[in-house]
Amino acid sequence: MSLDPHSPRGAHQLRARRLGLFAQHESIVLMRRDCHVCRAEGLSARSQVQLMAGGREVYATLYQLDGDLLELDEAALSEEAWRLLGVAPGAPIQVRHAPALESMSSVRRRIYGSRLDDPAIGAIVRDVAAGRYTDVHLAAFLTASSALQLDESETISLTKAMVDVGDRLSWKADMVVDKHCVGGLPGNRTTPIVVAILTACGLVCPKTSSRAITSPAGTADTMETLAPVELDLAAMRHVVDAEGGCIVWGGTVNLSPADDIFIRVERVLDVDTEGQLVASVLSKKIAAGSNHVVLDLPVGPTAKVRSAEAGEELAERLSHVATHFGVKTRCVLTDGSQPVGRGVGPALEAFDVLAVLQNAPEAPQDLSARACLLAGAALELAGVAKAGEGAVLAEAVLADGRAWAKFKAICDAQGGMRTPPTAGLQSPILARRSGRVVHINNRQIATLAKLAGAPERKAAGLTLEVRLGDEIGAGQPLLTLHAESDGELAYALDYASAHPDLVEIQA
Amino acid sequence: MSLDPHSPRGAHQLRARRLGLFAQHESIVLMRRDCHVCRAEGLSARSQVQLMAGGREVYATLYQLDGDLLELDEAALSEEAWRLLGVAPGAPIQVRHAPALESMSSVRRRIYGSRLDDPAIGAIVRDVAAGRYTDVHLAAFLTASSALQLDESETISLTKAMVDVGDRLSWKADMVVDKHCVGGLPGNRTTPIVVAILTACGLVCPKTSSRAITSPAGTADTMETLAPVELDLAAMRHVVDAEGGCIVWGGTVNLSPADDIFIRVERVLDVDTEGQLVASVLSKKIAAGSNHVVLDLPVGPTAKVRSAEAGEELAERLSHVATHFGVKTRCVLTDGSQPVGRGVGPALEAFDVLAVLQNAPEAPQDLSARACLLAGAALELAGVAKAGEGAVLAEAVLADGRAWAKFKAICDAQGGMRTPPTAGLQSPILARRSGRVVHINNRQIATLAKLAGAPERKAAGLTLEVRLGDEIGAGQPLLTLHAESDGELAYALDYASAHPDLVEIQA
Repeated sequence: MSLDPHSPRGAHQLRARRLGLFAQHESIVLMRRDCHVCRAEGLSARSQVQLMAGGREVYATLYQLDGDLLELDEAALSEEAWRLLGVAPGAPIQVRHAPALESMSSVRRRIYGSRLDDPAIGAIVRDVAAGRYTDVHLAAFLTASSALQLDESETISLTKAMVDVGDRLSWKADMVVDKHCVGGLPGNRTTPIVVAILTACGLVCPKTSSRAITSPAGTADTMETLAPVELDLAAMRHVVDAEGGCIVWGGTVNLSPADDIFIRVERVLDVDTEGQLVASVLSKKIAAGSNHVVLDLPVGPTAKVRSAEAGEELAERLSHVATHFGVKTRCVLTDGSQPVGRGVGPALEAFDVLAVLQNAPEAPQDLSARACLLAGAALELAGVAKAGEGAVLAEAVLADGRAWAKFKAICDAQGGMRTPPTAGLQSPILARRSGRVVHINNRQIATLAKLAGAPERKAAGLTLEVRLGDEIGAGQPLLTLHAESDGELAYALDYASAHPDLVEIQA
Repeated sequence: MSLDPHSPRGAHQLRARRLGLFAQHESIVLMRRDCHVCRAEGLSARSQVQLMAGGREVYATLYQLDGDLLELDEAALSEEAWRLLGVAPGAPIQVRHAPALESMSSVRRRIYGSRLDDPAIGAIVRDVAAGRYTDVHLAAFLTASSALQLDESETISLTKAMVDVGDRLSWKADMVVDKHCVGGLPGNRTTPIVVAILTACGLVCPKTSSRAITSPAGTADTMETLAPVELDLAAMRHVVDAEGGCIVWGGTVNLSPADDIFIRVERVLDVDTEGQLVASVLSKKIAAGSNHVVLDLPVGPTAKVRSAEAGEELAERLSHVATHFGVKTRCVLTDGSQPVGRGVGPALEAFDVLAVLQNAPEAPQDLSARACLLAGAALELAGVAKAGEGAVLAEAVLADGRAWAKFKAICDAQGGMRTPPTAGLQSPILARRSGRVVHINNRQIATLAKLAGAPERKAAGLTLEVRLGDEIGAGQPLLTLHAESDGELAYALDYASAHPDLVEIQA
């Protein structure tokens, strides 16, 4: 008899079944409660188990079934578990109790107030990236490092560990430029414009972007209405070699995968402390091979950063930690008091981007100005423009069509330019009174656009018809909803009725 | 159009299906990803949703399915959701986004270091008891109140809130006596003996006990091998009126239901701070209507309380908070260095209890002595014995058969005495060397008994053949495994081989 009680044995073997079960990032296995593995291993519902097949292993949460939905010898996997394990239907898989999580003892020490050193944080992040932490473990780690905030040394260790567990890109150029927004502002789609300006100026800017997680659009969602974005690393390199830059979805490269896992739980808890934010942002940039990074920090009452002081503090922490990794940063505190541009939603934001790049008369000036401000900061950081002259250069490159030409070339290199779709249904939301627009709630605007169908329905969302300070008459449109189905339109209209102050008007 | 965007509408209606899905305490609903509710509500995998039917509402986590395991209009419920919602198969249920959890803003404040007042803690506990907190939210609350430990005022608020959300029993007697062990010691089954002694002395002792959660046996599991324990409140009152006491499963009465929810997550995290423990123990006792409580605090290197100092501190906190609620306590620090009695497992512990009550020659003396110590403390606390004379009185009541007679009467009143089952398979674990027993690992002993099948298989578990300090020869039995199936026996044998030091022998 084996000395190792957990040695894989035929007795612990089941047949893999793909269930078509969507559980977000969660790896789940369903087994019959009366199957021999549950009995032999003493498994009960919500046990953490280890699945093994073909040399791969996956940690999963077990749910048990009575009845005949499953065969007695089947282990039915959620989509995430199926993807990670990579087995064929019916293939044998071994199931056993998940081994104890050694790194949780460090999390427990952190809960009780001990600071963690580099090896301890490294072990935690490796377990997180390997999918060994349940959401409960993740919540404990994130809460503990919020209650007693990460200090600079811990933040550096966390950043390093997060880079280490993922891929790390490298580029031929010595100088690799990037920009990033800490988020929270609907319609703030400067990235495609900034990348076009920077690459038109000869800088290397291999931009990987995310899809929306809880917002109405991510840069990758918007860009996808203009060109293919799901490029693998080879294709991405090809585009960057040819054009100096790209705007692709980061999901095909595995940059700081632990960050994606932390973020999902942070959003559930609505907890996002400085140390975690710094490690999150910088680990992605370092892994992407960037060494000159401009950071957009929108400040406003309904933005992520609520005050200029908080913005300055965050900027200082970001710069300190970045310096430790040889990354030069420039933080730009921007106006976060209202959405940027007119459109909110993948295609609607793409139309704003196009209008700015094409110098169209209807182009939203705030989006254009923000893009030039950020591009200018990057041009100065990279030494292409002198201090104070970056924005002017950016404006010139935008005005004379060079940015637009470069953007088209990038789209072509990524697989061909597309025309964003338009939604079949449109309905205005009208002002109930006359007066001046005194407040626009970024969070409610984002929710409204999502109810209308964004980002799943690419053409859905809303267009703002007013900006802060505008004088408006009763019955005039505040915004227009765009939807692809009656149900979603009705749902968004309901929400707008229930939240009349999402655009606040003072007589 | 309704002003409330979430008003139940026919459009959000599905048909209830019972799936036979076991997910522990988790309420889960499975729906087709392409169903009209998911589309109209913009639901995605792992959304928190609110299920409504027949005036009841349940919060559940949504998982989505592709394929035809479910019909398009079906909402398939986990066992817990099914139980809570109480619908018939095929009944219409409404599904909508779960409303925002207002009390989480207090949890977030607590995460960032603010103390919580009584109303804030009350709101959190009400949401927890209503099943509105996911495990992630629970983990955040528990971690936050461990990182910055609950102070006495918060502990009192938490205790009070936990009592308030459940049922509260009241008894005719002015003095209601109870005992409780903070846990962690296998075989520590003093409760049936203590209750028999106390009620034989005329005290009122309506004891509600729990089943095992992670241990090889709870008092309710052991007692169930001796008599029925699933009595409703009316039946319980009947027993207490007739005999002065009972030993029933607490699950049929709803005492401090939030406690059960907290405990499940604490066990996953292996975090259990003083404030949480105090609120947990006392809320159950207060809700059960007890006002004189003896607390057994086993102290040992592998018990929950690791040192006498920690035990004294915990005792002081328990007594302080109990006093606030008019509950008199006596804390008894006991030897937690090794399991109590011989048996570990529901029926095997029942045999020890019977042997002690019957004054059998093979009765484990340590179990007998502990029971008399605790019963004696209760007799003194209740004023039935003078200080220092309680244990002697308890021993007398045990020795002269009064406790045994009373125990039989209680069992009869609960529905009739039973003979505990014995396991078909038995296998000894032998000493590999001769020497003295210097350490017995409580945690590994518990794991071993569980692997052998306890507590699901009532007769399974183990009997210890040695105690600390015993001299033993190589090849002599350290313990005997009891199992009901070959697989479970083999698994327990494997574990014992892999952990030769679970009983440590020094030459």
